[in-house]
Amino acid sequence: MAPTTTVSVLVTGSEVLDGRVLDTNSHYVGEQLSRLGLRLGNVLSCDDDLSEMARCLSFLTEQNRIVITSGGLGPTADDLTRKAVADFCGVPLEHDTEAVKHLEEFFARRNRILEESNLQQALLPRGSTIIANPVGTAPGFIARARNGALIMSLSGVPHEFTRMFDDTVLPKILSELADAQIQKVAGMKIFGLPESVVGKLIKKLDLPREISVSYRAFFPEVHIALKGFVDDIRLLEMRNRVHDALGHDFVFTHDLEGSFEASVLRALISKHKTIATAESCTGGIISAMLTNQPGSSSVFLGGVCSYSNDAKEIVLGVRSETLSTFGAVSSEVAEEMAGGVRKKLAASVGLSVTGIAGPDGGSTEKPVGTFFIGVSLEERTFSQRYFYVGSRSTIRRFAAYAALDVVRRSLDGFQIPASLPHVP
Amino acid sequence: MAPTTTVSVLVTGSEVLDGRVLDTNSHYVGEQLSRLGLRLGNVLSCDDDLSEMARCLSFLTEQNRIVITSGGLGPTADDLTRKAVADFCGVPLEHDTEAVKHLEEFFARRNRILEESNLQQALLPRGSTIIANPVGTAPGFIARARNGALIMSLSGVPHEFTRMFDDTVLPKILSELADAQIQKVAGMKIFGLPESVVGKLIKKLDLPREISVSYRAFFPEVHIALKGFVDDIRLLEMRNRVHDALGHDFVFTHDLEGSFEASVLRALISKHKTIATAESCTGGIISAMLTNQPGSSSVFLGGVCSYSNDAKEIVLGVRSETLSTFGAVSSEVAEEMAGGVRKKLAASVGLSVTGIAGPDGGSTEKPVGTFFIGVSLEERTFSQRYFYVGSRSTIRRFAAYAALDVVRRSLDGFQIPASLPHVP
Repeated sequence: MAPTTTVSVLVTGSEVLDGRVLDTNSHYVGEQLSRLGLRLGNVLSCDDDLSEMARCLSFLTEQNRIVITSGGLGPTADDLTRKAVADFCGVPLEHDTEAVKHLEEFFARRNRILEESNLQQALLPRGSTIIANPVGTAPGFIARARNGALIMSLSGVPHEFTRMFDDTVLPKILSELADAQIQKVAGMKIFGLPESVVGKLIKKLDLPREISVSYRAFFPEVHIALKGFVDDIRLLEMRNRVHDALGHDFVFTHDLEGSFEASVLRALISKHKTIATAESCTGGIISAMLTNQPGSSSVFLGGVCSYSNDAKEIVLGVRSETLSTFGAVSSEVAEEMAGGVRKKLAASVGLSVTGIAGPDGGSTEKPVGTFFIGVSLEERTFSQRYFYVGSRSTIRRFAAYAALDVVRRSLDGFQIPASLPHVP
Repeated sequence: MAPTTTVSVLVTGSEVLDGRVLDTNSHYVGEQLSRLGLRLGNVLSCDDDLSEMARCLSFLTEQNRIVITSGGLGPTADDLTRKAVADFCGVPLEHDTEAVKHLEEFFARRNRILEESNLQQALLPRGSTIIANPVGTAPGFIARARNGALIMSLSGVPHEFTRMFDDTVLPKILSELADAQIQKVAGMKIFGLPESVVGKLIKKLDLPREISVSYRAFFPEVHIALKGFVDDIRLLEMRNRVHDALGHDFVFTHDLEGSFEASVLRALISKHKTIATAESCTGGIISAMLTNQPGSSSVFLGGVCSYSNDAKEIVLGVRSETLSTFGAVSSEVAEEMAGGVRKKLAASVGLSVTGIAGPDGGSTEKPVGTFFIGVSLEERTFSQRYFYVGSRSTIRRFAAYAALDVVRRSLDGFQIPASLPHVP
């Protein structure tokens, strides 16, 4: 059967099939293609086994003009993708000069010895083109199968896979499928509204049929993408209608590649503010989020993870009477934590979280999932109590977002919500 | 070809292929089967399309005796699994009395009206057995294909899928595959050896052919799983051989479900030690990792994210001469940070990291990726310089692991390595 214009993914590796690894690479491909209005036809996983891989490549190329493989390019004996693809294309494996050079440089820069097993990673099917891997040892390659399908083999390590996909594979797909029409995409990311409410509000708008709306829950964010074969002005008009319907304060960015923490930092920078954090139940998640952004040091002065009461008193100057009267998880302690860290580090904003992430430590009055956010500004100090039902790690992540969102809302002049809905 | 003893999963629905939904159902199946030593052969996704589904069912049943389908049992027009399976089995669809009764009761209990479209959900392939869905409207079913394969169709909603899988599908698989032998699994997780070296060391052991070895890189950890149709003693013997070959100090756990941070906390608890952290370039990742473990508050007293020099001086008591003479990224500052936080919070271990995560801030002498780990114990203080080439987020993650690993090694009496290899 003649290959059609769809793309498919073959995921290899027993770790994906036995539940040790959740494959996210194929999901990434689906998302990226969908943004461009292209279709992912099939995703198939199989074991590291030459005959299985041959069977799968043959199945996928029946219906898909392009097959992207994920995994099996490492240096160990169960890394069989190079051989499987070469066999399928009916060509031998050969050392690729560029791949050898990449490996030599990669190891030299790290003062490591290039093992014989690593050199195996420079074996590519004859006639294939190398796909550079700027962040790992295993180069990928593009090979042409005898039935005309294009096979692009990438490392299965997620940050290597996505980098190789963005840099080389996506442009290649676009040129290969140049005849396919390209959709326009716009959208936004929000925090603080559940996906079901977002869906209902957008449904009410009764958008024209040429615009398709898709949602993605990236806990606790919700991402909304509008797509259509329309012009930019028309698409932005629709995006603004959605934006108005949801309420401006929930949208933290229109940039579908932009992160929540970058939006918070941008708000601080634009108001010439600095921030310091005092975290109890979130344990450093907020400072880790902020500092993951390059250049955050101009805005983020420092943080204290005051897990114990002693740390709250000694490092932040929370009064022991406040702790004994109101308890560590209270508005009063949240406000003293925020004020303490702001003064200690001479920041313009002090932000604190104290709460009960569980699984133990809850009470009837303050059940697991209760947390308080404290904000200390030059002119005033305030706090807000919230509650979230979930596991320890979801409560912590939600609380970190809620705290940063209070800062974003304060800076942008939006109201601080009295309660937050459960997501999704 | 005669079906073999493996199980496979067919995931249907365009939402999985266009990146709106991450399929976790097949991952769940893989995990559950693997625990029992059973094998998931393939996972395949396709669109809601009758001919595609037929093509996929035929492909999967070639090699797998059991196919579990996920999705397509809803009441709308794109829910085609019932029809696709019936066609594949060569039988018509019929209203199933038990399924009709289930739907009537489900809607009555919720005071909802049973729509005509919902009754479509009670149509099952003739001769099939219903799979109860106690948590949703769509019942599933078990049908026998003409080639002898068993097809079990479940709702794609994750909490419905897992409930139906646990209650009905897993017991059915076990009885269907009663003749299949069960594989045993053992393994370990390591930090500090690259996958290629691990592979070479294990290859040298020349393990008996009945033991299969698989690797997984979970940056910057490497996980090793040994599997075989052998008895427990034999498998543990092999695992110990691998453990000896790799070097005991690299293995942080034998528990394939256990986390790195849990191992570090366990080492601290067993030695009755408490810990406090001072983080610069890691920005709170270490404290966030430790506090994600329930019960960490008995061991982790608190942390300081001393991003600015002021924070290092004011909160940790690092001397300004040390900062100006050696720079913030230096052994001397790392040691003063570790000592400062240990004394401040009266902990038995003070742990610090200071480094350059990039993308800017590097120099010839201290390029991006350089970091210093400081450890302050009651009896001594020491530091170690390391270097990692990578992106900002990989450098930060690697540095957090390296720092916690120094603590683990100190407590367990292992040597602190003078350099760390790049992973993978």
